[in-house]
Amino acid sequence: MLNFELLKTDPADGAYPGSHARRGTLTLNHGVVQTPIFMPVGTYGTVKGVMPQSLHEMGAQIILGNTFHLWMRPGLDVMQQFGGLHKFESWHKPILTDSGGFQVWSLGEMRKISEEGVKFASPVNGDKLFLTPEISMQIQTILNSDIVMQFDECTPYDTKGHITTEAEARISMELSLRWSKRCVDEFNKLQNPNALFGIVQGGMFENLRQESLDALVELDLPGYAVGGVSVGEPKEEMLRIMAHTPHRLPAHKPRYLMGVGTPEDLVEGVAAGVDMFDCVMPTRNARNGHMFTRFGDLKIRNARYKTDEAPVDATCSCYTCRNFSRAYMHHLDRCGEMLGPMLSSIHNLHYYLNLMQEVRDALDAGKFGAFVLQFRQDRQRGV
Amino acid sequence: MLNFELLKTDPADGAYPGSHARRGTLTLNHGVVQTPIFMPVGTYGTVKGVMPQSLHEMGAQIILGNTFHLWMRPGLDVMQQFGGLHKFESWHKPILTDSGGFQVWSLGEMRKISEEGVKFASPVNGDKLFLTPEISMQIQTILNSDIVMQFDECTPYDTKGHITTEAEARISMELSLRWSKRCVDEFNKLQNPNALFGIVQGGMFENLRQESLDALVELDLPGYAVGGVSVGEPKEEMLRIMAHTPHRLPAHKPRYLMGVGTPEDLVEGVAAGVDMFDCVMPTRNARNGHMFTRFGDLKIRNARYKTDEAPVDATCSCYTCRNFSRAYMHHLDRCGEMLGPMLSSIHNLHYYLNLMQEVRDALDAGKFGAFVLQFRQDRQRGV
Ligand SMILES: [Zn+2]
Ligand SMILES: [Zn+2]
Repeated sequence: MLNFELLKTDPADGAYPGSHARRGTLTLNHGVVQTPIFMPVGTYGTVKGVMPQSLHEMGAQIILGNTFHLWMRPGLDVMQQFGGLHKFESWHKPILTDSGGFQVWSLGEMRKISEEGVKFASPVNGDKLFLTPEISMQIQTILNSDIVMQFDECTPYDTKGHITTEAEARISMELSLRWSKRCVDEFNKLQNPNALFGIVQGGMFENLRQESLDALVELDLPGYAVGGVSVGEPKEEMLRIMAHTPHRLPAHKPRYLMGVGTPEDLVEGVAAGVDMFDCVMPTRNARNGHMFTRFGDLKIRNARYKTDEAPVDATCSCYTCRNFSRAYMHHLDRCGEMLGPMLSSIHNLHYYLNLMQEVRDALDAGKFGAFVLQFRQDRQRGV
Repeated sequence: MLNFELLKTDPADGAYPGSHARRGTLTLNHGVVQTPIFMPVGTYGTVKGVMPQSLHEMGAQIILGNTFHLWMRPGLDVMQQFGGLHKFESWHKPILTDSGGFQVWSLGEMRKISEEGVKFASPVNGDKLFLTPEISMQIQTILNSDIVMQFDECTPYDTKGHITTEAEARISMELSLRWSKRCVDEFNKLQNPNALFGIVQGGMFENLRQESLDALVELDLPGYAVGGVSVGEPKEEMLRIMAHTPHRLPAHKPRYLMGVGTPEDLVEGVAAGVDMFDCVMPTRNARNGHMFTRFGDLKIRNARYKTDEAPVDATCSCYTCRNFSRAYMHHLDRCGEMLGPMLSSIHNLHYYLNLMQEVRDALDAGKFGAFVLQFRQDRQRGV
């Protein structure tokens, strides 16, 4: 099930000219999600380096799982035995799973795409495997994720050394559309009790995006995503598609921008009408000592932090900032101590989740435009 | 300050023949510790992979820090700036620091021992350094640990390819004794407000152990440790020294057996009259997928756990066992996910701490002998 209540839409003629920002409540089988929301990524059934306990404490409402990875390990036998991903990873709030399409696409030369689906060799044990729209639906049904993503082909930005042409992007987009119909059929046949999202493709071409969107809206799915961004394109291209597509999706359904992005991207994405985001950036950057803060980003490895008694972000209420100094974080990084990425991941995820909380508060208070100005100014101040 | 209240001594003619087990309360500058106690090791100012929050939840009362490592990184300037280790690592309960002696001894050919102290090259940056009893006291004063260990030479089990002779062990033990006096003088001169422990050495020779003990007792220190065990000797040798030395130490002062050991060693150590233990085993083994349980040890890597829905230890109340299955732990290990060592370390430390809690409960109830029998039987049952 999925119920999306659109609580409020920021006026386009208000303090943020052209704003499409929205505030909503998304009810799923495992709970309620306040939107706009950021969803931490838990590839292998774990948000890297973060305990579910910590995710609860930082206010995570919904997390991701990767269908492809979970299919490889632990495998469907284990997933079936546990009745899905929730019990296995001990996360009892909503979960969204991707379709596996992005991961098989990322295998590059190791995979072969046909109308039927994608043939590839397992990167774990070399087994020859086949992923199709039907199989993706079957796996996601076993995972019992609250939001199931359609199987699609992620149109690359580069194709064989040149920027993907419109003709190439069209072929890819149309394949994804045909696959979306097969996904709907299989999802219904499986009587999956959760919600299936369609994915708008079309590369960097607005006309193709519009065609994809129109065809998907025909299918009357409970929610829609914008895919095929954050695939190596220049930032302006991403922003152009982000400005084009989300607000054209049905207003009464949740909109999910896949794989985006920086804190600035998220705020601009909200203004563009996006309700849901996911990205590995907060956790991946944390493991490299790259911290996000209200006043800009901070590389904890920098020697200037060796004696810095201040927390990573004095305005942050996360476990890390409440208890530890930059000097301590610098020390952990220098010693290669596991606690370093643990505490950094907590902070970065908390930063992203809190940013979305502040966005929601601003929308509730009718002050989104003012919030965005302050946000940009703060982020440019420097730590 | 240090105040040790001996609450109860298990009768030697009770259910555990020859028992020297004791129940006590140790009050230090940063809080109260119930003994017998196990102390998690936090080498570089962090118990590897475990947040202080988790240490509190599992009932840790006192943790260790390593003087040598903290001297190298972050260094004394940082430690001084933070007023000691407590604030730096955000652990506000008692801390014990070792003297650095064991670590410089472990540098092998890279160090040169003289009457004055130990010359060595920093393993971090190659700097030529000198560690003496006085310098160890100065560093530990800066660390502001609740329990300061004397600087000693850890008599090796092997010396230059042969088992250390009595003559060699005597020379080493006598050096440590001379150093202990220099430690007391420097500790007093520094007006360190914490408690200095002496360390009994003497290798595998009871007569030398007795001589060392007698001379240290003359110094009337607030607590005593038994060092120079767990240095590569056969298990029987360790047990022989453990049976000899602890109960000969003053009854009204806390007794600390350094670097020991397995769950069985801890229980036998309590019976031998030991109040305090530390060991890297629970955390180090956790990182290798080796879990301790009431019913024996468990290697989570074993394929038999792939589909095992049971927790690591069904009788354990730790965060890991309350929330996750062996199958999940096996999966994390297989995927090399950081959450694996994190959850395993929580379980193993909880196991050790809870074992000591059960020992204290048994002593309080006058049922130590029955407890030990049950403990041995359970541990041999198998998981
Ligand atoms: Zn923070
Ligand atoms: Zn446990």
